[in-house]
Amino acid sequence: MNNVRTDLALEAREVWQESAEENTSLRGVWARELDEEGFHITRVKILNEEGEKNLGKPRGAYTTVELEGISRRDTNSFPRAISVVAKELSKLLPETDGCVLIVGLGNSDITPDAVGTCATEHIVVTRHLVEKMPELFGKLRAVSAVTPGVLGMTGVESGEIIRGVAEHIKPDYIIVIDALASMKLSRLCKTVQITDTGIVPGSGVGNARSAITRETMGFPVIAVGVPTVVDIATIIGNFADDSGIELPAETLSEYSERLLVTPKDIDVNIADIGRILGYAINSALQKGMSIAEMDEFLS
Amino acid sequence: MNNVRTDLALEAREVWQESAEENTSLRGVWARELDEEGFHITRVKILNEEGEKNLGKPRGAYTTVELEGISRRDTNSFPRAISVVAKELSKLLPETDGCVLIVGLGNSDITPDAVGTCATEHIVVTRHLVEKMPELFGKLRAVSAVTPGVLGMTGVESGEIIRGVAEHIKPDYIIVIDALASMKLSRLCKTVQITDTGIVPGSGVGNARSAITRETMGFPVIAVGVPTVVDIATIIGNFADDSGIELPAETLSEYSERLLVTPKDIDVNIADIGRILGYAINSALQKGMSIAEMDEFLS
Amino acid sequence: MNNVRTDLALEAREVWQESAEENTSLRGVWARELDEEGFHITRVKILNEEGEKNLGKPRGAYTTVELEGISRRDTNSFPRAISVVAKELSKLLPETDGCVLIVGLGNSDITPDAVGTCATEHIVVTRHLVEKMPELFGKLRAVSAVTPGVLGMTGVESGEIIRGVAEHIKPDYIIVIDALASMKLSRLCKTVQITDTGIVPGSGVGNARSAITRETMGFPVIAVGVPTVVDIATIIGNFADDSGIELPAETLSEYSERLLVTPKDIDVNIADIGRILGYAINSALQKGMSIAEMDEFLS
Amino acid sequence: MNNVRTDLALEAREVWQESAEENTSLRGVWARELDEEGFHITRVKILNEEGEKNLGKPRGAYTTVELEGISRRDTNSFPRAISVVAKELSKLLPETDGCVLIVGLGNSDITPDAVGTCATEHIVVTRHLVEKMPELFGKLRAVSAVTPGVLGMTGVESGEIIRGVAEHIKPDYIIVIDALASMKLSRLCKTVQITDTGIVPGSGVGNARSAITRETMGFPVIAVGVPTVVDIATIIGNFADDSGIELPAETLSEYSERLLVTPKDIDVNIADIGRILGYAINSALQKGMSIAEMDEFLS
Repeated sequence: MNNVRTDLALEAREVWQESAEENTSLRGVWARELDEEGFHITRVKILNEEGEKNLGKPRGAYTTVELEGISRRDTNSFPRAISVVAKELSKLLPETDGCVLIVGLGNSDITPDAVGTCATEHIVVTRHLVEKMPELFGKLRAVSAVTPGVLGMTGVESGEIIRGVAEHIKPDYIIVIDALASMKLSRLCKTVQITDTGIVPGSGVGNARSAITRETMGFPVIAVGVPTVVDIATIIGNFADDSGIELPAETLSEYSERLLVTPKDIDVNIADIGRILGYAINSALQKGMSIAEMDEFLS
Repeated sequence: MNNVRTDLALEAREVWQESAEENTSLRGVWARELDEEGFHITRVKILNEEGEKNLGKPRGAYTTVELEGISRRDTNSFPRAISVVAKELSKLLPETDGCVLIVGLGNSDITPDAVGTCATEHIVVTRHLVEKMPELFGKLRAVSAVTPGVLGMTGVESGEIIRGVAEHIKPDYIIVIDALASMKLSRLCKTVQITDTGIVPGSGVGNARSAITRETMGFPVIAVGVPTVVDIATIIGNFADDSGIELPAETLSEYSERLLVTPKDIDVNIADIGRILGYAINSALQKGMSIAEMDEFLS
Repeated sequence: MNNVRTDLALEAREVWQESAEENTSLRGVWARELDEEGFHITRVKILNEEGEKNLGKPRGAYTTVELEGISRRDTNSFPRAISVVAKELSKLLPETDGCVLIVGLGNSDITPDAVGTCATEHIVVTRHLVEKMPELFGKLRAVSAVTPGVLGMTGVESGEIIRGVAEHIKPDYIIVIDALASMKLSRLCKTVQITDTGIVPGSGVGNARSAITRETMGFPVIAVGVPTVVDIATIIGNFADDSGIELPAETLSEYSERLLVTPKDIDVNIADIGRILGYAINSALQKGMSIAEMDEFLS
Repeated sequence: MNNVRTDLALEAREVWQESAEENTSLRGVWARELDEEGFHITRVKILNEEGEKNLGKPRGAYTTVELEGISRRDTNSFPRAISVVAKELSKLLPETDGCVLIVGLGNSDITPDAVGTCATEHIVVTRHLVEKMPELFGKLRAVSAVTPGVLGMTGVESGEIIRGVAEHIKPDYIIVIDALASMKLSRLCKTVQITDTGIVPGSGVGNARSAITRETMGFPVIAVGVPTVVDIATIIGNFADDSGIELPAETLSEYSERLLVTPKDIDVNIADIGRILGYAINSALQKGMSIAEMDEFLS
């Protein structure tokens, strides 16, 4: 099989299934699929070393919500999406009520890499209010949010900035938001992956990103990601597979290193999914806060 | 041969040459290649209907400057590039000294489509100064600059906005700046095409753009374009050609309609080439103004 | 009395009342005050030449809504504000159901001058949808929206750009959104003035703006304005009045020409009021569209 | 004397001189004035506790460069300004050649508070290049640059973010860039103060900013500031002084807390001075790098 690159555990599992012989079970991996509010959810757990090897990803829980209908503006698709993503995110968050640090990764100057910074604009930031006016805001969860930028602009790895900030504010956990790569065009900007493994260097837009995990940060890291690009080698590889051709891996990887493939309406897609992620995170953190109440904090 | 899409007359000519039998001359087309300040220049003229048919583009002059070395930051590559582009642009501008309208096309929210708006930020705008303080600025060319946005955001075709503005300020000519599509990855963000035909609907990022030509605007239109995307069908088609496979055109065209393929460092590329275009246009319009003098107008 | 500058008919009337002797009636002016959804509304009509002279503003209707409680985030203050502004705006709109052109005036690089461009980002733009997919969107009002920028950046008066666009799309009427000057600090960013007179050169942030009225545009012009700055001469003048000092007018006017006085939290204020204006205009134009439906168009 | 607020040591000294009786010397303070490249420079040193008390500022060196002629675009005013500011800055920088952290303070959404973030956009960032490609870039000074945002948006004090980053990259020193308050309108956006005391909470735009000094950061802090606002209480106080009136301090301070007073052309001013500061810092850090070379790194 030709080149395959994906940041989604869901797709790594699909690839395994396609290539595995019938009746072979995927050992070390637990999975369940369900539908909720009209959206398809896949929960994958990589249980042990065997599972890690089979899917090529670290041990942990990976939940994928497929947000079909968002771009068609199906009835109530936005509030439904916010609600389902918030619910799935809640299941993977540590059960605490202390301070949380939100991190929007990526380069806001490259549209498909801007999903993290865009989502962060919709986060209800409260840490300063909770600390300075506890009588008014003491019931809110203390939330702070930073966008560390990218190495080429700051000269500092985003991981170094996050760790530096985290050491000062000592959050119960960190939520990082990032752009991912998918294998399938149909999933671009329509799929959310939530995982308790944090970020491990992958094949997304900014693929040189260093690991942002509990080990490197010193605090639990939940990652929320959205595929916004597809590896061009994957697309060409698919064609080659269909035609039974074996392509030279080096040619494809050279393409992959140099090119971004992304939807034409990426600006609208990023704005849509960024808003959904921001509000879903708010919902998961501030129990009982309505969208209208978030709006009053945000504008 | 599989699918080929390009906005560059240079590439249309290359395609013709590759497919033509030896010793067949490309009738109705005049071409000349030369080197200037270390950059390769190709001047193509489509002379008549036969040339139009052969290259699939309207009659007119098309000059291409290939800016190799810009991204490597070769010594003095920026001032050299500005000087060569200004000189080639000057050759295609009408010989007048009246008012000029600069138009930065495209959607600034999609990085590879932002080359027009980015270049416009570097234009020295003088029309109001020349009119209100002729004693101080009377020696400058009267230049105005607009960025009409895109249909999805304004509800108005950019052509309608430009024509409306042009009818009021009655420029000697219009210079439109836009993103184009190339066939070759190596030309992305490194090539400038200047043409006196204006903009005809093409295969660039915003391929639904309506014609912006002397006929539709009522004033001569010079177009300055930079390829920032490559059609994914072209890339896959090349692979297919190499393997001797005939691909179904409809599959490829579906991909082309939905996806953008652009360099990974597109943010830096757009900033670089936008600056070069802006300063080159200033140089061509304001004879004798140095880069340092432009800076003082711009900041 | 020392220097007074205001763009609000409401304040021009207050000044008249303070300076007039008791029992003198303000001739040529009709006024009514009322409360709606907890907000104070003043409707002023300048009826004839005498009224024009008394208030120093052209004949027409001027409605002011004072949005107290917005910055305190009073319960439901946003939806209530949107509803009241939409209702008052509706009363001054021509009764037609044709195409409407929205214009966001001002310089988005100067925070207190960005209210027009900020509001425009929240306008549901539909003209292209209504024209191209009437079967899906034919029930919507055709709305287009432009932000013409400022003279110093484009070299073209915003009035020239608007007139050029309007001549092409021939709207039933134009709604222009702009920043104004108030006399009272307490009204900054909390007051909306709606008038059917259009924009006449005033004392707002960009006070050199040319007239944008039915006479200059050729179409009815409704202006929606928010005071975001106060003239420093007014503040100093108030102090002088209180102390019984007569100040040299030239000193004050020199200050006024050079300085902006605006609230410290102007960024949040502009974001708040911009959103309220955008959604209120949507409500007035697209009867029956809910805020959630607007969100789905906008994101 | 009525209310006076200034962040400039230069002005604190002027105030002292005006109020002091003749022949009284300002003890504990050393000062020298000179002209360089057509710009006026004042070097003030607060030497001991007596000087601290007299000027109300901490012990340290304060250099002020007055950039008259910048806004008039005097011949070569930009390169001359860059050269003089770089030279004065160099005198206050620790003599090391290790890593430097640049910090652009302030809220980029409020124009007069954006001078720090604007200047940072012009910083040549090299730390990642020096570390990863020492054979190519090893001769450059390792420079990194961050913009920590403001408390209301991140929920984290900018000082906490800077300290966190600094602890990881362990710079030889930190340069912070910020907006200040001046007493005199004529100095707004035309004056640069460089000090080795760092930032102490002052009267600038974001006056709640916490201290960023060697004591709080653990590394030497050089502050580069530009007055972009004037306290309205200072303006009104001047009027009152001229008229011999004593104003109630509480009224004035209420105004000061709520209002910003800034030049009308603040957008152009911030762009100008931000560029000058960025290039001056580059010049001071990367000895021998020309403006054209900086441009090639920056675009």
